[in-house]
Amino acid sequence: MSSHTYAVIMAGGRGTRFWPLSRRNRAKQFLEVAPGGTLIQKTLARIEPLIPSENVLVVLGQDQREEAMRQLPGIPSKNFVVEPLGRNTAPAIGLAALSVRERDPEGVMVVLPADHLIGDEEEFRHVLEAAARMASQSTRLVVLGIRPSRPETGYGYIQPGDPIAGDEDQPVHAVRRFVEKPSRQKAEEYVDRGYLWNSGMFVWRASTIQDQFSAHLPELKAGLDRIGAARAGAKRARVVEDIYPTLESISIDYGVMEKSTEAVVIPCEFGWNDVGSWSALASIWKKDDAGNSVRGRVVTLDSARCVVSGEERLVALIDMEDVIVIDTPDAVLICPATSDQKVRDLVNLLEVSSLDRHL
Amino acid sequence: MSSHTYAVIMAGGRGTRFWPLSRRNRAKQFLEVAPGGTLIQKTLARIEPLIPSENVLVVLGQDQREEAMRQLPGIPSKNFVVEPLGRNTAPAIGLAALSVRERDPEGVMVVLPADHLIGDEEEFRHVLEAAARMASQSTRLVVLGIRPSRPETGYGYIQPGDPIAGDEDQPVHAVRRFVEKPSRQKAEEYVDRGYLWNSGMFVWRASTIQDQFSAHLPELKAGLDRIGAARAGAKRARVVEDIYPTLESISIDYGVMEKSTEAVVIPCEFGWNDVGSWSALASIWKKDDAGNSVRGRVVTLDSARCVVSGEERLVALIDMEDVIVIDTPDAVLICPATSDQKVRDLVNLLEVSSLDRHL
Repeated sequence: MSSHTYAVIMAGGRGTRFWPLSRRNRAKQFLEVAPGGTLIQKTLARIEPLIPSENVLVVLGQDQREEAMRQLPGIPSKNFVVEPLGRNTAPAIGLAALSVRERDPEGVMVVLPADHLIGDEEEFRHVLEAAARMASQSTRLVVLGIRPSRPETGYGYIQPGDPIAGDEDQPVHAVRRFVEKPSRQKAEEYVDRGYLWNSGMFVWRASTIQDQFSAHLPELKAGLDRIGAARAGAKRARVVEDIYPTLESISIDYGVMEKSTEAVVIPCEFGWNDVGSWSALASIWKKDDAGNSVRGRVVTLDSARCVVSGEERLVALIDMEDVIVIDTPDAVLICPATSDQKVRDLVNLLEVSSLDRHL
Repeated sequence: MSSHTYAVIMAGGRGTRFWPLSRRNRAKQFLEVAPGGTLIQKTLARIEPLIPSENVLVVLGQDQREEAMRQLPGIPSKNFVVEPLGRNTAPAIGLAALSVRERDPEGVMVVLPADHLIGDEEEFRHVLEAAARMASQSTRLVVLGIRPSRPETGYGYIQPGDPIAGDEDQPVHAVRRFVEKPSRQKAEEYVDRGYLWNSGMFVWRASTIQDQFSAHLPELKAGLDRIGAARAGAKRARVVEDIYPTLESISIDYGVMEKSTEAVVIPCEFGWNDVGSWSALASIWKKDDAGNSVRGRVVTLDSARCVVSGEERLVALIDMEDVIVIDTPDAVLICPATSDQKVRDLVNLLEVSSLDRHL
């Protein structure tokens, strides 16, 4: 891959859906949810054959920096791009684009969430190379679109248009439209009609995304320009502190991708798992004969299709079916598998109660 | 109550149905399952207005003695009757009868399980007085029979015969027969036909039960006689060690009550709860608007009719209904309310696994 390519690992997420395993200062990306390293370590390892460490930027919150540096000792400390507070993906990508552009006016950014899993890494890298090639030679905004395996209602979808580049094996399609998380019925329709899941993985030139900000988010761009005008280092950090909180909190999808005529999508199939819920995570764990996915010191009696994550304590289930049990040293969560999206609501409940020390 | 009356608190039970709250060395009777003291402390407090501490015997295992003495500091240490190992209720009662008889040839024994709860203690004591009166003046075996509130399949039933003593308010009935734990259908029939629950609470003269042993369990009686022949003290303890393990392990119900023509029953209604399962226990806890019975640091979201016992850790439930969650520092149990009788099976499973350190 060209030396102009930079990875931007988006690691600012809070991962409340994984409470009680994830906590305020230990978000999902910093957990070893599957053997072989934490999610962010796997994200890095996955691109290491393509992109040298000095070209990897990590965007995250101040309180996540220490943990990220500990987990990613090969990344130069100056490559950690700190958001003073979370303002969604558009400002974060804008901040990273500044860094890439300053290092390399021709820099291509590969934007990768820090908390996904990918089964076929070889294929993933193959796609990334194609995407980076296209991005470097054009003003396209390349998004990786995952071929759906089910009518998931938790993801945004992309309706692909005609192929505009690539070959039969690896076509690149125009994007007809982005659609937000659909109803179950809509999701089924989308799957039937060949829509793709929006993976949140993007590839573009830093200069391209900056031009797109100018076109679609001019106020945000003006704020980013003020940050960019400050000399990198302590001064820049202070300006970021001042300006960043004033920037519009908006996602790159909503702020740019849905509005731009430059968006193209590469259909992908590489065992993508966004680890967006306990059920999604357990889908990659080994199952026992009764379909239970179990980690830790767990005993099940006449139980089936349960997801149980334990640590040192013993977790015992009798006659339970389709439930999730997550046990940690100071909190245990129990809910039906179908309710795993409500963990966020529970976390909100804890926040407004006197129990926020468990967050 | 006559000074010839002795209480015999049966405290040798292991209470595996309350795992993980109950453990090998901390059986149900030693737990504070409801506010105001442990079950054995409440058992003692309930009879204190009737029977002085020096007349209270406590039958238990060697490994339970220390905890019992700690919890019942007012009971003289010589009143703790130690079984070298559990041999069910008949030998235990036989051992206690020896002690009572030696202290008082006319002694009347009130046999009380250590791990029940009683709502109306005044009424309970009223019944005990009537029972002790009848027992002291006859060779009757008086059993307290609880008027059923539901077709429970977990208890033995007693079919009462004609009234033979007492008055309309407090009749004493002959016993037509004892029946073991019935099917659901049988239980409904029994409730309709006025059967009573066998409470496991008995009143008789020590000499009476000894005569009954002679009649119905002659081998057991011979063993007890050998124990009785040894001088109380260290010598007695050594003989108990030798003889007791050789005694037949049999319940007083099966060994004596079902066979004797002397059994009589007093129908009782005093809020009896044998605390035989988590559901039975939770029936006395306060419920929230959704019918959840909760102790400890618990958060429920859209959950109903759950029984949750927590300690320091946070227990969080989402969308759960009719489940039991028992959280302790080193183990957590999750099962449907209808499966609470299977906790024993789970404990057996732990015993044969490498997880017996959690017992």
